[in-house]
Amino acid sequence: MKFCSECGNSVAQCVPTGDNRLRHVCVSCDTVHYQNPKMVVGTLPVWEDKILLCRRAIEPQYGKWTLPAGFMENEETTVQGALRETVEEAGARIEIQQLFTLCNLPHISQVYLIFRARLLSLDFAPGEESLEVRLFEEPEIPWDDLAFLTVEYSLRQFFDDRRKGQYGFHIADIPRRNR
Amino acid sequence: MKFCSECGNSVAQCVPTGDNRLRHVCVSCDTVHYQNPKMVVGTLPVWEDKILLCRRAIEPQYGKWTLPAGFMENEETTVQGALRETVEEAGARIEIQQLFTLCNLPHISQVYLIFRARLLSLDFAPGEESLEVRLFEEPEIPWDDLAFLTVEYSLRQFFDDRRKGQYGFHIADIPRRNR
Repeated sequence: MKFCSECGNSVAQCVPTGDNRLRHVCVSCDTVHYQNPKMVVGTLPVWEDKILLCRRAIEPQYGKWTLPAGFMENEETTVQGALRETVEEAGARIEIQQLFTLCNLPHISQVYLIFRARLLSLDFAPGEESLEVRLFEEPEIPWDDLAFLTVEYSLRQFFDDRRKGQYGFHIADIPRRNR
Repeated sequence: MKFCSECGNSVAQCVPTGDNRLRHVCVSCDTVHYQNPKMVVGTLPVWEDKILLCRRAIEPQYGKWTLPAGFMENEETTVQGALRETVEEAGARIEIQQLFTLCNLPHISQVYLIFRARLLSLDFAPGEESLEVRLFEEPEIPWDDLAFLTVEYSLRQFFDDRRKGQYGFHIADIPRRNR
């Protein structure tokens, strides 16, 4: 951020009165421009013993497999956002079952929320941001070609819980990726 | 938003190519300025049969009672943010126990996350944003003077669960307040 979005003048970094961290503050109109983490909402859609994954048609991680998920939009709920992303990326009709994982990614200031969902029909199809959408049984999951650690974490928790016969709710802090 | 935070020129509202909703887009450098929901993180601190509440020293809802909570900051996790707000507003040392409520407020594009927590000592004290901090037994809760519906919802779920002898995780969509 270099300019004030309210008046167009320059911003400087300083700690506003009563605050305790650096903010972008307009040198002209004094507006403080707060920056906060973004939420990514998505689903883990299940059909019988299979999971729906999408192959990404966009960067980052072009060509890698992911759960349908994306940035939550203003004026929607977390569930509405997760349903919307599942339609946009996979053309899939689902029923949300529970909030399944919450992943903190503090190094990129994001929080992922993934809902476990029941896929309601097989007439899904890739949206503009997907190259391909298909169902995977557990042994077929492309572990080495998953787009994000949040996706890997959610899938591993899902298969663990399925073996136990009970689905929980899981929170994790995901470190910076080193590969 | 009236000006581009990257180049200082004017922004216009339009639907970017490949998108499906109105965004603020710079007429000069074409930067798209996305706006996304903000997360509010906080705690419900418990000491024996009592709950810690803070009386707000800031607007909105000056003078009303709230759970310690505030906007999540970049580069922190949800738990770190909840702990930080509890220190800042109540000077309280706590131990987080579980994510207890998630409240969607789509009309103001916010998502609240409240963690159930154990208060570790009685040496709490109001921070700059609080007039007063104290413990309440259930019959003393100032239901008519709570700052936010998210606080009321979280407290009601807490007392309900306590009566049942088991704490769950609760998601709610909170409507616009009509009082």
